[in-house]
Parts: sequence; C-alpha cells; structure tokens
Amino acid sequence: MAARIRLSLLAAIAAIALACPHARLSLLAQVDPLPAWNEGAAKRAIIAFVQTTTDPTSAHFVQPSERIATFDQDGTLWVEHPMYTQVMYCLDRVPAVVRAKPELANVEPFKTAMTGDREAIAKLPMPELEKIVATTLSGMSVDQFQTEVRLWIDRARDPRWKRPYIDLAYEPMLEVLNFMRAQGYKTYIVTGSGQDFVRDYAAKVYGIPPEQVIGTAGATEFSYGENGEPVLIKTPKVMLNDNNAGKPEGIHFMIGRRPYAAFGNSTGDRQMLEYTKAGKGPRLAMLILHDDATREYAYGPAQGLPDTKVGTFTQALYDQAKKDGWVVVSMKNDWKRIFAFEQ
Amino acid sequence: MAARIRLSLLAAIAAIALACPHARLSLLAQVDPLPAWNEGAAKRAIIAFVQTTTDPTSAHFVQPSERIATFDQDGTLWVEHPMYTQVMYCLDRVPAVVRAKPELANVEPFKTAMTGDREAIAKLPMPELEKIVATTLSGMSVDQFQTEVRLWIDRARDPRWKRPYIDLAYEPMLEVLNFMRAQGYKTYIVTGSGQDFVRDYAAKVYGIPPEQVIGTAGATEFSYGENGEPVLIKTPKVMLNDNNAGKPEGIHFMIGRRPYAAFGNSTGDRQMLEYTKAGKGPRLAMLILHDDATREYAYGPAQGLPDTKVGTFTQALYDQAKKDGWVVVSMKNDWKRIFAFEQ
Repeated sequence: MAARIRLSLLAAIAAIALACPHARLSLLAQVDPLPAWNEGAAKRAIIAFVQTTTDPTSAHFVQPSERIATFDQDGTLWVEHPMYTQVMYCLDRVPAVVRAKPELANVEPFKTAMTGDREAIAKLPMPELEKIVATTLSGMSVDQFQTEVRLWIDRARDPRWKRPYIDLAYEPMLEVLNFMRAQGYKTYIVTGSGQDFVRDYAAKVYGIPPEQVIGTAGATEFSYGENGEPVLIKTPKVMLNDNNAGKPEGIHFMIGRRPYAAFGNSTGDRQMLEYTKAGKGPRLAMLILHDDATREYAYGPAQGLPDTKVGTFTQALYDQAKKDGWVVVSMKNDWKRIFAFEQ
Repeated sequence: MAARIRLSLLAAIAAIALACPHARLSLLAQVDPLPAWNEGAAKRAIIAFVQTTTDPTSAHFVQPSERIATFDQDGTLWVEHPMYTQVMYCLDRVPAVVRAKPELANVEPFKTAMTGDREAIAKLPMPELEKIVATTLSGMSVDQFQTEVRLWIDRARDPRWKRPYIDLAYEPMLEVLNFMRAQGYKTYIVTGSGQDFVRDYAAKVYGIPPEQVIGTAGATEFSYGENGEPVLIKTPKVMLNDNNAGKPEGIHFMIGRRPYAAFGNSTGDRQMLEYTKAGKGPRLAMLILHDDATREYAYGPAQGLPDTKVGTFTQALYDQAKKDGWVVVSMKNDWKRIFAFEQ
C-alpha cells in the first residue's frame, strides 16, 4: 500500500512537472522517478530517453500524441514462472468445463489436466496445452468470461509466494509505467496472453485501460440471448496470435503507429523491439533478463542461465540486443526491489 | 476557417468548464455547444445525454474512464454519395495497379475500371468492386500506403462540390465530436471503410488519433526489407469486416468495453446501436437520415426516400429506431448548416 501511495505521489509530482515545463528538468533531478532501480546503465537509459523525448528544446523531442510505449506482460511486467498465469487460470477452469461436457473427462489433454498433477501437466506438449486454453477461453459471453476471471484473480494464489497473482507485478516496471505516463506517454500492454484475460485486471494492476491491452485474441460472435438482448460470444477462432511477428502486426492493427519505446523479456518480443528500434529518431528497446534465482527466477538460456520453455531468452537474442543497442536489464543487479510487498 | 476557430473556441470553453465542474452547467447554458443544429428533439437529446452522464450529482453519472462514444464515418461524419470515398480512391488507384501488373488490363473488373466510365463502374456487382478494393489496398508496406493515401486526399476532388473530400465532413457532427470530447468522452470511429485509409486523415479532419479508428482491416505481414529493416506488408486477408455484426465485434476487439453513445446512418450500424443501447444506465443511439436532396442527398428507402445501395436506411431500421428510443436526425430539419464552407 505504501508503495502505491508513493507511486501516486510521484505521478502527481511528475504531472505537475509536465504542466510546468520550465520546472521539469530540475524537478526530475530532485525526485528519483525510479527508486526501486539501482543506479546503473539501465536506469540511466530510461531516464535519459524520457528526458530527451519530452524536453521541447531537445533535438529528439517527440510530440505528445506520438508518445507510445509498449510492454510485454508475462516476465516483463509480472512473474511468468513456473507457468504463465493465464495457463494456471485455464487449468483451474478444466473441472468446470468437464462438468459442462462430461465426454471430455476421458479425452486428453483434459484427462491429465483433471488429475491436478502439475508435473504431468507441465509435460503436456504445447499443442495440447493450447487445446486447454482454447476450450476454457471460449464458448461463453464476454460478460460471463469477465465475471469468471475477476473471481479467479481475487481468489487464486501463486504457489511460491502464496499471494494473489496481481501482487507479483514488478515494482520497478510499475515505476517505469507511471514515470512514462506522467511524461505524456501512452502505455500499452502487448502480450501473448489473452487480450480479454489481461484486460480484466490491467487497469487495477498497471493503470492501463482495456483499450490499451493488445493480446492474443479470439474472434467474438454477435448474436441475441434468450430475451433478445445482444450478446458477444467468445469463439476459439484466433484473430491475433500476439507473439513474435504477431506483436508488430498487432501493434499496427490496434494502434496504427510505431512505438517509441518497447519492453520485453523473451524471443517472443524480438520483432516488436526490432520494429520499434527501426523507427526514426530516438527509440528505446529494453529486455529484462531473469537472472535472480533467489528473489525471483533464473532462466535463459542466454548467459548460461537454465533453459526454459516459458519465456525463453536465447543467447542469439542477447547478442542481437548488445549489437543493436537494446538495453538488457539484469533483474539481479538493476532492481533494488522486485515486489511492492518486499518492503 | 472561421468555423474551425469557432469550434476550437468552444472546445476551449468546454475544457475550462470541465476543469471547473461547478461552473460547468451554467456555462453550458450560456454557450451553445451545437450552433449548427436547429433547436429540436435531436439537439436536446444530445445535450441532455452529455449533461446527465457528466454531472457528478446525477444518478446517471458515468465515470470519465467509461465515457466511450462511437461514430460510423461514411454518411454519419461525412458524405458517402454518390460512392464511398474509399471506393473512389481505389478506382483512382487502378491505373497504377495495372501498370505494375499489365496482365490485369483485360481482366474484369479492372478492364471496366480502366475505362473511367462511372456509370459502368457503378453497375459492377459488389464482389467485383470488392476485388478492386482488395487489390488496391494490399501488396504494399503500411508506410507506402500512408504516403499514397495522403497524396490522394490532398489532390482528389468530390465531383459535386469540387472540393477536397475532407471538406465534406458534417459541421454538426464535428460539433458533437468536440462537445463530447470536451466533456471527457473518448471518441472512436467505427467504419466499414478501411482502417488504415481512415486513420490517415482522421486526426486532421475529426481530431481522432489512429488508435481510435476501428475499420475493416486486412492482416499485415511482418517481414524484412532490402536492407534488413522490418516492414509490415498489407495483405488481402480480411481480419475484421467492420459492418453489421462486425461493428460490435470490432468494438469489443479494439476497445474492450461497451460504448455509452453510438451514431450511425444505415442498416450496417444496426448491431452497433443495439449493442450500445443494451448497456445498463443511460445510452444514446442516433441515426442520421439523409432527407435533404437540396443541400446534400436524399436516400433511404425509409420514409419513402429513394432506395440506394450506398448507405441503405431501411424502413425496418426506422421503425426499430422509433420503437427502441433511438433518435433519428433529419438532416433537412435538424441541421442548420451541413458544411463549414457554407458560411
């Protein structure tokens, strides 16, 4: 709570600073907009980028209407290990789906999912996991889905910290979101997770409204309910697979212009960062490296970190980042605090 | 120009009013936010809706973050007769396409389109016109497309008024957009025309940024150009057909919440208005009826107006509007001025 108040205070100060441009730079110098970050190249890069693009006297000034920043969610804004939160949701929904369609009880992958055996479930091949995801995320109205997700988000607990998943947002990244918004940036989530899923808590957790969440999305189908009322039913037909090349494609579809800053943490974010960095003028591309097994998790396989299927950060991506001037954030060295609840 | 200055002035006054809630109602009473509208039920409905949803003491108060208003474009915000502006653009692009692919010169519908014979072109069946649209709107990068559209928008002239198409935006609707925005509404275009096409001039004409334009959209494909730079190529694969049921589906996809107000003018807007009106609390649904052959065009076939394929407003839609409390705007009676250049 204290952290949230501090963030709001910072945002307020930054907003005042924005309204009074002459006071801006000196205020920034006095108030640290990123207190959960250790001093270092990553923190300096963020502050320098924001300053140079929002200072009207700078050669790199960016018009407020053009200030777009995009953020991957899983592994960039909150914890994604041992498994993406949305997959945890989908697994938890399997019993309800099987109750509604008992014929699924003896069909894979539902049979394995019903055992609750996390190890066996983790071994399911990706296409089988996708079947679970598609089945549990479609077939209901968008309103029903919203109700179900909100209930789950309130009740579910992460297995390691025994806390609601929304407590596992990274404090340093919440600071970046607030700092950039206070300087006139419009912040977007660009996630491989489900668009409707993330929208249900994005305002609460990140201060990002539904229309600024771009995610993997199934088509909906407009029809009429029992009383003739219009309803939108979620279908399994994928409209946007918001991973890899799907990220810049989704950004064009939903925003219609190129971001000035993009943040990710895995090979699934590569094209979004390439697309962002290829724009004219100053552009910020940043990748979070999970190298802190003690406070969070350590995985790569870049830099000799353990390999993973969830949020893979290859050595090739690491080398590309170094070559192309993307900033790699070391969670271990660059982040003073990871979660608000640590205080 | 005088009209634009007046609009800006109104917006400024309204913005001040918004910042000082106590002064708001009395200011509204003094300054007419919709001077291009004649006094009548339609004008009263808009003002009453905006007042009741933005007055914090009202039982129908709507939180600023929830204030979403959606506007069809063709026939609602600007002229769509004798043919949708985007189709005019596509027809004008046919020679360039045929130069690039000479084998199309003797293939229909390109052969007819190349003759420039508007009557023959107008008789092409819709699937043939769609072939022209798909061919002229795909195959290039999104940046190339933007350049082409901007050049055309600057140069092309409407056949009747001999003016740039962007001069044919309806002054009364520009007032509604400005009035609603000044009262905290986020205004969206929800159009059957191409999303990228409309985005290229929406900021200039309507004050609406690219990310608030929802339209019929083809998929883009991310790839790399000659110098290895990332490019997005427009493909003919339709991702969103933003007509009829596609409008509420597109609204859910792009915004993720239900509008409080929706404006249209044809049967293609029916589902958007139904979806809007079915929400809880106060909702405004409005249809423009083109019943002014002298100052603009007259078509229906509702109310005995001439039938048309472009922007059809059926009697069934008219009856539904009357039954369900949607407001039907008579262009002839409700609009004092239609275009800014009339002054």
